[in-house]
Amino acid sequence: MSNYFPILIFIFAFLQIYMIANYTLLKQYVISVFESIGCNEQDAILAADVLVSADSRGIDSHGVARLAGYIRLFDHGRLNPKPNIKILHESPSTALVDGDRGLGLVVAPKAMEIACGKANVAGTGWVAVQNSNHFGIAGYHAMMAASQDMIGWAMTHAAPLVTPTFSRERLLGTNPIAVSIPALHEPTFLADFASTAVAYGKLEILQRKGLDTPDGWVQDANGMPSNDAFAIKNGGALLPLGGDREHGSHKGYALGAIVDLLSGVLSGANFGPWVPPFATAGFMNAGETVGKGTGHFIGAMRIDAFRPAIEFKKDMDIWIQRFRNAEAVEGQKVIIPGDPERVLEVERKANGIPLIDPVVEDLKALSVRFNLDFKIA
Amino acid sequence: MSNYFPILIFIFAFLQIYMIANYTLLKQYVISVFESIGCNEQDAILAADVLVSADSRGIDSHGVARLAGYIRLFDHGRLNPKPNIKILHESPSTALVDGDRGLGLVVAPKAMEIACGKANVAGTGWVAVQNSNHFGIAGYHAMMAASQDMIGWAMTHAAPLVTPTFSRERLLGTNPIAVSIPALHEPTFLADFASTAVAYGKLEILQRKGLDTPDGWVQDANGMPSNDAFAIKNGGALLPLGGDREHGSHKGYALGAIVDLLSGVLSGANFGPWVPPFATAGFMNAGETVGKGTGHFIGAMRIDAFRPAIEFKKDMDIWIQRFRNAEAVEGQKVIIPGDPERVLEVERKANGIPLIDPVVEDLKALSVRFNLDFKIA
Repeated sequence: MSNYFPILIFIFAFLQIYMIANYTLLKQYVISVFESIGCNEQDAILAADVLVSADSRGIDSHGVARLAGYIRLFDHGRLNPKPNIKILHESPSTALVDGDRGLGLVVAPKAMEIACGKANVAGTGWVAVQNSNHFGIAGYHAMMAASQDMIGWAMTHAAPLVTPTFSRERLLGTNPIAVSIPALHEPTFLADFASTAVAYGKLEILQRKGLDTPDGWVQDANGMPSNDAFAIKNGGALLPLGGDREHGSHKGYALGAIVDLLSGVLSGANFGPWVPPFATAGFMNAGETVGKGTGHFIGAMRIDAFRPAIEFKKDMDIWIQRFRNAEAVEGQKVIIPGDPERVLEVERKANGIPLIDPVVEDLKALSVRFNLDFKIA
Repeated sequence: MSNYFPILIFIFAFLQIYMIANYTLLKQYVISVFESIGCNEQDAILAADVLVSADSRGIDSHGVARLAGYIRLFDHGRLNPKPNIKILHESPSTALVDGDRGLGLVVAPKAMEIACGKANVAGTGWVAVQNSNHFGIAGYHAMMAASQDMIGWAMTHAAPLVTPTFSRERLLGTNPIAVSIPALHEPTFLADFASTAVAYGKLEILQRKGLDTPDGWVQDANGMPSNDAFAIKNGGALLPLGGDREHGSHKGYALGAIVDLLSGVLSGANFGPWVPPFATAGFMNAGETVGKGTGHFIGAMRIDAFRPAIEFKKDMDIWIQRFRNAEAVEGQKVIIPGDPERVLEVERKANGIPLIDPVVEDLKALSVRFNLDFKIA
């Protein structure tokens, strides 16, 4: 991989990238920003780790590109930098957790800690979280369980950009699910995917290039098929995984709905079209709510509550090797969920994280505001 | 709906249907068949209820059309009509269950009973099942939890018909997931869907009519896009939900993989390409296995282990009404997962279940073999 680094740099430059940030310096800078709004050191480190892990794994839309957004949340009084995260109700294998308007980046890992603690005693642990905010990449939280020989689950809902099948109204978020399943010698299986045909970030790339979308990604304001990369800004919507009814969009809709019902209704957070947007100003004046903040649903299942972990993990190795060695379509190969992000993480931690111009400008502006050294490369 | 019944009959007749079976008589007949192979009365009633519920809900591919297949399983020594279904290992919220080669139609409901029992004490219950067989429709088992104010989960894997993204080899089954979530005055939300773009049954309909498939349903033996309704018989495969990489097939692949890993690897059953086919003769000679029979994964989450069930169910009503009343694409309406099957169930229990010619012939042959009255209409 590292042989291609010069080529990558060239491509990045072409795509408006002008800086390759150093992983450690970037994380240190993010820590200092979170501390500037009042987070304690421990929380700031945790939040920065979640955020920069998105960048290092190539999920740039959920990394430091969002840092300014989290600070806007704080500015608008929606983010409590010193949350009292507490269990409101519990049973041996469950807990309802109040995130106290904290950073989802901090609330979700703490919910996973609670889930793993429950799983240690009761076999599994399931935590519904209310009153939280955007939690970054779901995969980070799910992965926390794997190192403890547990299967990890993380879901969250988000503000409505997606239409149920046959709807003109956007009622669901991109509502991702992550599941991590540890193996023995093979790396952990990590599925982490939105319940839509594509991530919003892919539309943004087309917007920058002035290109149309393929069929099956978006619809227009009348619910008709569209190829407009700006469809959402023009009253349209992202389509559920499957695209249209003929290709199973009712399944993507069902999946997004399950995530919303577990993250929102089961937790007592908002749900459906009432889920608050990440950090836009418009929402700050929106009056109607049906619950508390944004919700998540986090789970951990101890493997040896089912069968001996060593036997399970040997079978995982067999599964992974069989799939990875499958006869592939010419010129392609079959990969395991989590492969590309893991490879990129090693690459970027060693060689740096490419940041596009607008993101660097946003980061720099925060350094001026908080009087911080801006040294990330 | 019942006003349309004469029209339905006409359409059914056009589609090779020649009999409208009576729900109660059909079920009674299925009970007598299961008793003929040695099932006790209680198990035969349960198995028949699961099977005929598929027909009454319109999932004809998983109903009495499969009865002869279950009997073939018995003939080939793969089905134990008197299974000793037992817990091999457990924790407060989990159990590993040995289905003892019983009917999945019986094993899965018993696994759900165990899950609900665990949930009553520990908040949630999760049961991995090994050494079972085809369990009918996932939705039946998931629904068992809803009446107890629990969220129900049911998954199973199946023999490989589906290719991971970029694979030419079929390594996954259609691997369905069902989740049931109860509401207050509104009916239970019931998502029950395969992790493929379409069900295999839809290909069979096109085969009978001599029509091609739409794009994105199947691929040919080289992994190239195909419109051949006979693609699977010609070495091709069903595609994961999403269809191709550009439309998110890696997400459908991940979903099918999660179902396989929970149903197969976590339970100690077979997994991936080793999952035994439903009831074909060919498999009977297949030597290689990596685990015990077919596996399932069943779960129950007690709602008031998170928040008061009454509050939750009121919010479910708000969610369902908001989605059902969404502004729809012209000429369409937005429905809730489970709506069509529930409507059809009322209709068919009252007015009968249409059966196509080959299915009636299969059923009749069983009556000759077991010396049973064949009175289903």
